[in-house]
Amino acid sequence: MSEIPYKIYLNESEMPKAWYNLRADMVHKPAPLLNPATLEPMTAQELGGVFCEELVKQELDDTTPYYEIPQEIRDFYKMYRPSPLVRAYCLEKKLQTPAKIYYKFEGNNTSGSHKLNSAIAQAYYAKKQGLKGVTTETGAGQWGTALSMACAYLGLDCKVFMVKVSYEQKPFRREVMRTYGASVTPSPSNETQVGRKILAEHPDTTGSLGCAISEAVEVAVTNPGYRYVLGSVLNQVLLHQSVIGLEAKMAMDKYGIKPDVIIGCAGGGSNLGGLIAPFMGEKLRGEADYRIVAVEPASCPSFTRGTFAYDFCDTGNICPLAKMYTLGSSFIPSANHAGGLRFHGMSTTLSQLYHDGFMEAVSVVQTDVFEAAQTFARVEGILPAPESSHAILAAMNEAIRCRESGEEKTILFGLTGTGYFDLVAYKQFNDGTMSDYIPTDEDLQVSISKLPKVDK
Amino acid sequence: MSEIPYKIYLNESEMPKAWYNLRADMVHKPAPLLNPATLEPMTAQELGGVFCEELVKQELDDTTPYYEIPQEIRDFYKMYRPSPLVRAYCLEKKLQTPAKIYYKFEGNNTSGSHKLNSAIAQAYYAKKQGLKGVTTETGAGQWGTALSMACAYLGLDCKVFMVKVSYEQKPFRREVMRTYGASVTPSPSNETQVGRKILAEHPDTTGSLGCAISEAVEVAVTNPGYRYVLGSVLNQVLLHQSVIGLEAKMAMDKYGIKPDVIIGCAGGGSNLGGLIAPFMGEKLRGEADYRIVAVEPASCPSFTRGTFAYDFCDTGNICPLAKMYTLGSSFIPSANHAGGLRFHGMSTTLSQLYHDGFMEAVSVVQTDVFEAAQTFARVEGILPAPESSHAILAAMNEAIRCRESGEEKTILFGLTGTGYFDLVAYKQFNDGTMSDYIPTDEDLQVSISKLPKVDK
Repeated sequence: MSEIPYKIYLNESEMPKAWYNLRADMVHKPAPLLNPATLEPMTAQELGGVFCEELVKQELDDTTPYYEIPQEIRDFYKMYRPSPLVRAYCLEKKLQTPAKIYYKFEGNNTSGSHKLNSAIAQAYYAKKQGLKGVTTETGAGQWGTALSMACAYLGLDCKVFMVKVSYEQKPFRREVMRTYGASVTPSPSNETQVGRKILAEHPDTTGSLGCAISEAVEVAVTNPGYRYVLGSVLNQVLLHQSVIGLEAKMAMDKYGIKPDVIIGCAGGGSNLGGLIAPFMGEKLRGEADYRIVAVEPASCPSFTRGTFAYDFCDTGNICPLAKMYTLGSSFIPSANHAGGLRFHGMSTTLSQLYHDGFMEAVSVVQTDVFEAAQTFARVEGILPAPESSHAILAAMNEAIRCRESGEEKTILFGLTGTGYFDLVAYKQFNDGTMSDYIPTDEDLQVSISKLPKVDK
Repeated sequence: MSEIPYKIYLNESEMPKAWYNLRADMVHKPAPLLNPATLEPMTAQELGGVFCEELVKQELDDTTPYYEIPQEIRDFYKMYRPSPLVRAYCLEKKLQTPAKIYYKFEGNNTSGSHKLNSAIAQAYYAKKQGLKGVTTETGAGQWGTALSMACAYLGLDCKVFMVKVSYEQKPFRREVMRTYGASVTPSPSNETQVGRKILAEHPDTTGSLGCAISEAVEVAVTNPGYRYVLGSVLNQVLLHQSVIGLEAKMAMDKYGIKPDVIIGCAGGGSNLGGLIAPFMGEKLRGEADYRIVAVEPASCPSFTRGTFAYDFCDTGNICPLAKMYTLGSSFIPSANHAGGLRFHGMSTTLSQLYHDGFMEAVSVVQTDVFEAAQTFARVEGILPAPESSHAILAAMNEAIRCRESGEEKTILFGLTGTGYFDLVAYKQFNDGTMSDYIPTDEDLQVSISKLPKVDK
């Protein structure tokens, strides 16, 4: 047995006191969000109607390298952080690999994922601005749960629009949010203009994330004292999530460990952007080199088969345009795909870094992902979320290549969460009824051809 | 902010290397199990047909104070232990109490509870004896999940009989067990003689724990290479669970903290017996004094309203008799009660200690328990299991008394697990449709009057 423990925990006194703003070290900054009406960059004032002030500042600031984490947020972090950096001794043994595998586990909190890191920050700034509450949308429910927890802690009102099909199929997620005092409304609803319009036109619709976003934004901008918050894609979210990478790097530095490869799953980019932040910073500054790999589902392959262009962030086309790798906002991934990596686009920061050659991307199919999840669960004892399992599979593949080549690489991957609310998907896998879906080139040509015409 | 961190983690090198056998320090030993046919104490040979050898030895040994934890089990423990000892700063603030509240959190593993501590030990000894597999029953599913995980890790066959009503109402628990490779059979089934007999007589039965035990035992004794394992009540289980208390005491000693009151929920006694073990040891040896409080549901009040007598451990009356606090094996707690504290009896060790005045017991009603669970979740961020929430409520009540009296007591309680699979009960509470049930004196007189006549 090596001297490196199974789990490396930092002391609370070692926890990061500032978030790291990756954009400060980028030569090519991520392109600005554009106002969909004028196609001009969104101003702080325009964004301020939707988001609270401090978050607008963080969203637009691509030069300040560090943001101090307010003491109140650090106190909240202490309830579930520092999260463990785990040496996957049992997985290494199972794979008979000379590679050393580490994972940063973000599932040790009731929200079941890393989403809480940004939820508490966004709720804190809303509270500090004197707001009454926040609105948001949720699909699978991880983000909604995290936000409910943060708002319960701060005594802030929390209104969640949950895609109707999820509301009905994931009643337990809904109950967790209610236990934390959030109001959860199936979307589309009669509570908003946009919801009523959609219901009038499509009375039997099961809803969509795009529609839920529209409802949440409408409630935020029409109710004094409310703002809208979002759990991924945005620069501010990557800033808050940098706590993952900062802790991981500090824990590795403590034992003199340097990763060769860093792997994370990528939906909107919140986890990957957070995990890689300080490593990518070193890479951008020319201080160190790392291979950085984004893993995405073959059913929704924004990086590997998308195009780098301005596009809407929502299917309803009411939100600002972002320059990103996208499959087109009209692209709808197969409903049979499990998990939260179904976003058609990608964080603008990660998109720019990928475009500039600072990171790689691979796509993997769902049944392989669940096969890896099952193997991981049995040897490492954690039931992983489907999203996280994309990273597990890529890390396992890397370790198997090391077995074949004899290389003793050090692999770090992000284990973003647990799969307690994904057991319908596990059941499909256990029953052998899970299928894979890969969009055809024609499918993608159609959705990409509908991109808005932006000359930037 | 005090210098005591939110979470006290031991280093892996500080983890206990031996379990503590509380019985070694008891002057009045727990009474022996009796053979239901002869009413004579069960011999090692008789028990060996059902349990594997090393576990029989541990079951019967009431003199050896320490059992070394085999290295393989310690390696497994490292995947999810040491578990954190948490200072409930936020709960203290919420209650405005001068009391200091600590909880030992055992929910940071996929089984979601402390059950894994004994599951890995029992599976390990079965494997070491060269057995092919183990059988067990499960109701709510925590024990079955824990055993599935342990067996997956060791490559041991695992056969779980799950009470039919739970099998149907908790499909997600079933899927977790299947993901870990266990076979899960709804009980009663056609796979056993006893199951077929019950089905012939009661084709529409939804099953019972007693019936599931009978089926699991039958499969174990009629299949070469199989033994039966059990997750609570037994002395061996309390021995393995002592790891909880040993870690808690070590963490508190490290910071010079001495608890005044130690609180745990009590169903069969596995968690409570483990948490209190080293503290009770000091108390028995006259080295220190602690108040030790068992918390049980008012719907199944073995300690507070039961009688201390020999009784069957199972409703089917095929298992050995144990001398314990019991409501009678024919007592059936209301089906509307959530959680795993519905056993009519209690660990013989804890029963003897309670009888001898070394501990107290209180009973609490379900809606109060969920009220406490909700408060705890909102301030401490963990969604607790209903079982654990009994201890939360008792600890909160103690802290409120301290607020009134001004006493700065130090309270330690066991947070045995998470409530991810108990959201049907949370929904009832959120909807206001949860009810309380307290058996009448007449109910208890009837079931207690049916106790077997044993002159010991």
